[in-house]
Amino acid sequence: MAKQEDIFKNVVSHAKEYGFIFPSSEVYDGLSAVYDYAQNGVELKKNIREYWWKSMVQMNDNIVGLDAAILMHPTTWKASGHVDAFNDPLIDNKDSKKRYRADVLVEDFAEKINQKAQKEIEKARARFGDAFNEEEFVTTNTRVVEYLSKYKEILSRLAKGMTDNLQDVKALIEELEIADPETGSKNWTDVKQFNLMFGTKLGASADSAMDLYLRPETAQGIFVNFLNVQKSGRMKVPFGIAQTGKAFRNEIVARQFIFRMREFEQMEMQFFVRPGEEMQWYHHWKETRLKWHLSLGLGKENYRFHDHEKLAHYANAAADIEFNFPFGFKELEGIHSRTDFDLKAHEQYSGRKLQYFDPELNENYVPYVVETSVGLDRMFLAVFATSLQEETLEDGSTRTVLKLPAVLAPTKAAVLPLVKKDGLPDIAKKIIDDLKWDFNVAYDEKDAVGRRYRRQDALGTPFCITVDHQTIEDETVTIRHRDTMKQDRVKISELRAIIEDEVSMKNWLMKM
Amino acid sequence: MAKQEDIFKNVVSHAKEYGFIFPSSEVYDGLSAVYDYAQNGVELKKNIREYWWKSMVQMNDNIVGLDAAILMHPTTWKASGHVDAFNDPLIDNKDSKKRYRADVLVEDFAEKINQKAQKEIEKARARFGDAFNEEEFVTTNTRVVEYLSKYKEILSRLAKGMTDNLQDVKALIEELEIADPETGSKNWTDVKQFNLMFGTKLGASADSAMDLYLRPETAQGIFVNFLNVQKSGRMKVPFGIAQTGKAFRNEIVARQFIFRMREFEQMEMQFFVRPGEEMQWYHHWKETRLKWHLSLGLGKENYRFHDHEKLAHYANAAADIEFNFPFGFKELEGIHSRTDFDLKAHEQYSGRKLQYFDPELNENYVPYVVETSVGLDRMFLAVFATSLQEETLEDGSTRTVLKLPAVLAPTKAAVLPLVKKDGLPDIAKKIIDDLKWDFNVAYDEKDAVGRRYRRQDALGTPFCITVDHQTIEDETVTIRHRDTMKQDRVKISELRAIIEDEVSMKNWLMKM
Repeated sequence: MAKQEDIFKNVVSHAKEYGFIFPSSEVYDGLSAVYDYAQNGVELKKNIREYWWKSMVQMNDNIVGLDAAILMHPTTWKASGHVDAFNDPLIDNKDSKKRYRADVLVEDFAEKINQKAQKEIEKARARFGDAFNEEEFVTTNTRVVEYLSKYKEILSRLAKGMTDNLQDVKALIEELEIADPETGSKNWTDVKQFNLMFGTKLGASADSAMDLYLRPETAQGIFVNFLNVQKSGRMKVPFGIAQTGKAFRNEIVARQFIFRMREFEQMEMQFFVRPGEEMQWYHHWKETRLKWHLSLGLGKENYRFHDHEKLAHYANAAADIEFNFPFGFKELEGIHSRTDFDLKAHEQYSGRKLQYFDPELNENYVPYVVETSVGLDRMFLAVFATSLQEETLEDGSTRTVLKLPAVLAPTKAAVLPLVKKDGLPDIAKKIIDDLKWDFNVAYDEKDAVGRRYRRQDALGTPFCITVDHQTIEDETVTIRHRDTMKQDRVKISELRAIIEDEVSMKNWLMKM
Repeated sequence: MAKQEDIFKNVVSHAKEYGFIFPSSEVYDGLSAVYDYAQNGVELKKNIREYWWKSMVQMNDNIVGLDAAILMHPTTWKASGHVDAFNDPLIDNKDSKKRYRADVLVEDFAEKINQKAQKEIEKARARFGDAFNEEEFVTTNTRVVEYLSKYKEILSRLAKGMTDNLQDVKALIEELEIADPETGSKNWTDVKQFNLMFGTKLGASADSAMDLYLRPETAQGIFVNFLNVQKSGRMKVPFGIAQTGKAFRNEIVARQFIFRMREFEQMEMQFFVRPGEEMQWYHHWKETRLKWHLSLGLGKENYRFHDHEKLAHYANAAADIEFNFPFGFKELEGIHSRTDFDLKAHEQYSGRKLQYFDPELNENYVPYVVETSVGLDRMFLAVFATSLQEETLEDGSTRTVLKLPAVLAPTKAAVLPLVKKDGLPDIAKKIIDDLKWDFNVAYDEKDAVGRRYRRQDALGTPFCITVDHQTIEDETVTIRHRDTMKQDRVKISELRAIIEDEVSMKNWLMKM
């Protein structure tokens, strides 16, 4: 556990030091749970977005794109259920006036008990060495058995209270004597629902200003445009509409760096199908999306499916693709069979038909929808955290290397003159002037070449191209591969093809 | 004038019919001054954004990117001056309770007088034919002279009132007896300033909720990150930070389709320079940005510079690149020499130094800034409206063709089997399966091939590739060029290179 925390701290500090992610408005001490993508982060993020877009829109002739606005007509959120049901359970401490998520208070309390059990387990493991049998220990050691059963009981009562009656959650907080983490006070109000949408006002007139929301998800922009896209694009069911864009949630407890932010970006595709055919498409998209993730080569063992047992009100099947983040397996992407819930709700609230005429069946119907929804920021974190590695080299020294999939790397190659004289910088710049039309390339002449290699390793640059005195004679350079540190001597004229082969989206997508 | 309006109407309806732009939330009767980019619009918009990004970030080794969040610490907007000075002058009608922009009421009134003059001119032109001398007429015809001098007088008094004293604007409205356009009432309140930023609240606790704004411009996200980028990126002055992203303005009068929207996207670059060197960089960027626009080939005559005589409080030089929109020449891009105003203001409000140590001068200073700022939606409108053309063909028939620069076209090629049988569709699909790794390509088998050509013309697709019976024999197809309608017979294996040559960003950027 401690080690996981260290890894995560390292991820956050590397992201800042090497220009991937900064806290938002840091000169003003930041804005909680909002982050800015810095000069290298913006390129990595763009590449992930484009890799998704190409695989969805460019490669599938029955999927088209969309870019709906963040501001939408407010009735959209009435129809989608967000106005009435997009809530978090909050509780106030009467003495400190601090507000908390009631479920998080209970979860944190339960986790502390779990930690006690884990500590006992670790102590026993250290004592017994190879002879330690964890399975036996957790079922026989009285203290551990007690901790773990208490832990499970609390979580199960919390889950029940969250669905059945929020006042049971308050009762649980009082029974467990949970105190305000900041002040220790146990003087709590009732638990109340708080809507997570950010509100704003459109227009200036006191009587005509309209209450708007910043969209809490991009999906509804697709649903309200469904018929316009189908008609103007002459689309035939089954077909999909894909979209990337910002969404906003006024999270009370936003944690874990860019994993859960108040402003975040989604990459969503809604696939419209014949009613009754949704389950086959649901399975198709589960498999296809996992293949997309695996194509990046971050390791099959880092992904798993989690099928939902409890379904949202709009779904008849749902699964997550979970990823092994530095803080454990968590949702990376959701695949949901949303039925005709959304389109029917928009029909009802707008009074307009949102039906498709199926020429093969000679019949009108509201299509069913299978959704794939991945968080772009979560994808960024998954790729970044997994790629960040400390390696011990043969000579015993260590290097920090960001083993990003080459297709996603912000900079594809750095060109380094061995020394700052003898015309080597000019040759390096000529190489850059030639390559920059096709790739992001960087120039670096400062410090010894070994140090420059380490710097590019830490930035995730797949190739370093070094110009030396031999280059003047035979127009060859060395090209160093980030992951293997192997260096080859190649002709300058070969560089483009070597780089292209390893970084082109086409070659990576072909692995799917 | 009437003709311009027709052209503009045609632009708006073509954008909707062919899947470029839909009104936002149209099933709920839309949201005023907000639009969604549809399946073809999103591709055109992405291509414009990428063309800008490549030319700015990828091609310049001293410019890096950034993607700052829309939500920022609220003190940012205090420092930038937006909280105090980003206002529109509003006036309420006491009877109707309707609210208007006071300056727009006056402008509309003045424009009606101008229209009277224009009508007289048109009548005279029709009467005198070739003999008509407009210059002489407008200085001698008593009625026209009177209209035009009244028109100019009103606009000049309005401009003075706007800067000196808003109550003079109210006095002008009363003197001109301007009535509420909807009800005819002349019973007005005083003119008051209204802040154009959208507000929202972060957090849930009554006492700890923070008043935030949706950013009204992307520039400040660059300024507050200036030092983090400079340090982590080891940047040396002069250097630039480029960013694209959404901004929001609660416009009271938002007009002209996507030209002035409440939610819009900017493409901005802030270039940090030594104090005293800003004017040479200002001129450099004016020229460079114009070259970028001209590289798209929309016609040199459609661009002009407008140097600002009156400067904003933060600028010591400013110019617009104006474009000939369907409603006349209007601002497309702004190039501003912003001095050290913004960085100094953030120093003052944050209490942190935002200085650069210049190793050549061995000296610390706050850099000066030259900004280039172009509206992505305005670029879209400029490209789209100019490309949309009606052509009369040799046989007397007409065609609608969207002559988009090929580099920006949403779909690069459509593959059409001449008939739906004899295996031609299979060959067409095989061609698509091969080309789709590199380009957006479409398949179309419906209707006669001539009609399909027209459809692709209207979508702006540069190439139509037709598969016919000869294809089966010799693996050749016809490739039709959108603008010339010329058809060549080529080998299937040559297609990729032919298309690549005309659509690659590299080839277009090389024209700069």
